[in-house]
Amino acid sequence: MAVYTEVDDDELEAFLATYDIGELRSYKGIAEGVENSNFLLHTTAGTYLLTLYEKRVAPEDLPFFLGLMNHVASKGIACPVPIRDRKGEMLGTLAGRPAAIVSFLEGLSVRKPQPKHCAELGAGLARFHLAGADFPLRRANALTVSGWRPLFEASRARADEVSRGLAAELADELSALEASWPHDLPQGVIHADLFPDNVFFIGEHLSGVIDFYFACNDTLAYDLAICLNAWCFEHDGSFNITKARALTQAYNHVRPLDAAELAALPLLARGSAMRFLLTRLYDWLHHPPGALVKPKNPLEYLKRLRFHRSLSSPAAYGLD
Amino acid sequence: MAVYTEVDDDELEAFLATYDIGELRSYKGIAEGVENSNFLLHTTAGTYLLTLYEKRVAPEDLPFFLGLMNHVASKGIACPVPIRDRKGEMLGTLAGRPAAIVSFLEGLSVRKPQPKHCAELGAGLARFHLAGADFPLRRANALTVSGWRPLFEASRARADEVSRGLAAELADELSALEASWPHDLPQGVIHADLFPDNVFFIGEHLSGVIDFYFACNDTLAYDLAICLNAWCFEHDGSFNITKARALTQAYNHVRPLDAAELAALPLLARGSAMRFLLTRLYDWLHHPPGALVKPKNPLEYLKRLRFHRSLSSPAAYGLD
Repeated sequence: MAVYTEVDDDELEAFLATYDIGELRSYKGIAEGVENSNFLLHTTAGTYLLTLYEKRVAPEDLPFFLGLMNHVASKGIACPVPIRDRKGEMLGTLAGRPAAIVSFLEGLSVRKPQPKHCAELGAGLARFHLAGADFPLRRANALTVSGWRPLFEASRARADEVSRGLAAELADELSALEASWPHDLPQGVIHADLFPDNVFFIGEHLSGVIDFYFACNDTLAYDLAICLNAWCFEHDGSFNITKARALTQAYNHVRPLDAAELAALPLLARGSAMRFLLTRLYDWLHHPPGALVKPKNPLEYLKRLRFHRSLSSPAAYGLD
Repeated sequence: MAVYTEVDDDELEAFLATYDIGELRSYKGIAEGVENSNFLLHTTAGTYLLTLYEKRVAPEDLPFFLGLMNHVASKGIACPVPIRDRKGEMLGTLAGRPAAIVSFLEGLSVRKPQPKHCAELGAGLARFHLAGADFPLRRANALTVSGWRPLFEASRARADEVSRGLAAELADELSALEASWPHDLPQGVIHADLFPDNVFFIGEHLSGVIDFYFACNDTLAYDLAICLNAWCFEHDGSFNITKARALTQAYNHVRPLDAAELAALPLLARGSAMRFLLTRLYDWLHHPPGALVKPKNPLEYLKRLRFHRSLSSPAAYGLD
């Protein structure tokens, strides 16, 4: 939550001169995102967001991310729209880093989503999936089932420091997921990180989706499973079926799930819980002492994983 | 350069409901200032800055700071204007901290001030001094001559770690300043921290002054001496008389300096260099390892102090 790169005024003005977005009136580094440096720009033409991509984003992935935002925006999805420079490029260089300017999206993220927010999210996610169907670029998901074992191995020896028995439980779960993970469900571009932080609302209406830096090609229903984990559990760890029903039914109304997707939903939700559990576990065990960003507790996702494992049908998610 | 306090959406919306500034459309924590948490707000009525005052600002000083901004703004000084809530109050409470909303000021600070910027600054500083003349509240300057000795004593034992002989040189200088410091020059409200970071320009024109959190009652010409140190030295430590002349003559044109002020200027500039040298020295020796904010090199101000000490008249500042 910081600005990692300071930008010199002269450099910034020279960079902006390559765009047709008016004259700079002010810019402020904003404390948003943990991976990149972001600046809010006011120009005589409007408000924009300038992002400098820091080392955790692979430069070769940027055409996918920016192209996707541009593609889905052109199909009516509310998201930041990359601004092209005078040469037509969406990606430039500033302060030695890859840099892009996108339109600024108004809206507020909700800390305590209500069922109406979940319904908006479900419909929005389905529309995003439909809009991405003909996006031509491809990016593999490094954090799907094949990526979980190396992540697990990097934390396995110390997993029981977090909770006794965790290493054994995760080993069993991982084997089960690897053995039964579905590979033939409908595929497409997924957001893959659609947490409440990344969805803006004005009132109860979804006003936009941000942060496409985990987007990739993968199983569409897996994206819905991520949202079940990210939006439908209460702070005490309990599952809120009213929110889940709002989410899944709104999704299903816009993009109907087929029978195989429906049947796989509990497994996909287990997998999604595993994915966030493993990255949180890794960060928990490996964050440098005194780091600015406090790691999130991985055990929240162990509870969610167990919940999904206990289900015998997708009816628990409100799809009937 | 960070947001120290996270604000909950619900809390923020409840706080904003006590103001008449429209509905919230977005808010971003901004990486500005090292002492407080600042949020840029977009509402249906415009753009505002929300500040949560953290522990380094004494709550009892806030009526002085906010009242001063309100007072000088009403006299035409371009600065953030505190917004009153529906009860007429400029100061509220949010997330357990004193909080205020001010109008957002467009403009860019200059990293490499040119003589034209210095002239704008000089005229702006003089207008600020005139505007503050009838401000009724008072705040003593904790960082004037009487405050330097305790600050020096807190660093004295380790000063030579920074530069050999520093402790002895500062001891001599401090005694000289204490013996000869002028106490009968024209007094008033001074900004006391008018570094380039705190002055905004649009093109070559001064568009506003920010960060009044060191403002206090003190010798007016001392404020000009602070600006001489902050604006008229090059990165290599050399003094730029063209910039100094632009600064002092523009000041003098709006608020003519009397003979005693003119004669005291080299001494005031030595004192100002001492003040920033001592706070930087303290921060240099006492900052926690791994701290987010890198301390500034105190020795830059030793060079400036020596320069001012070498002068026999204010003519070197371009006043003739």
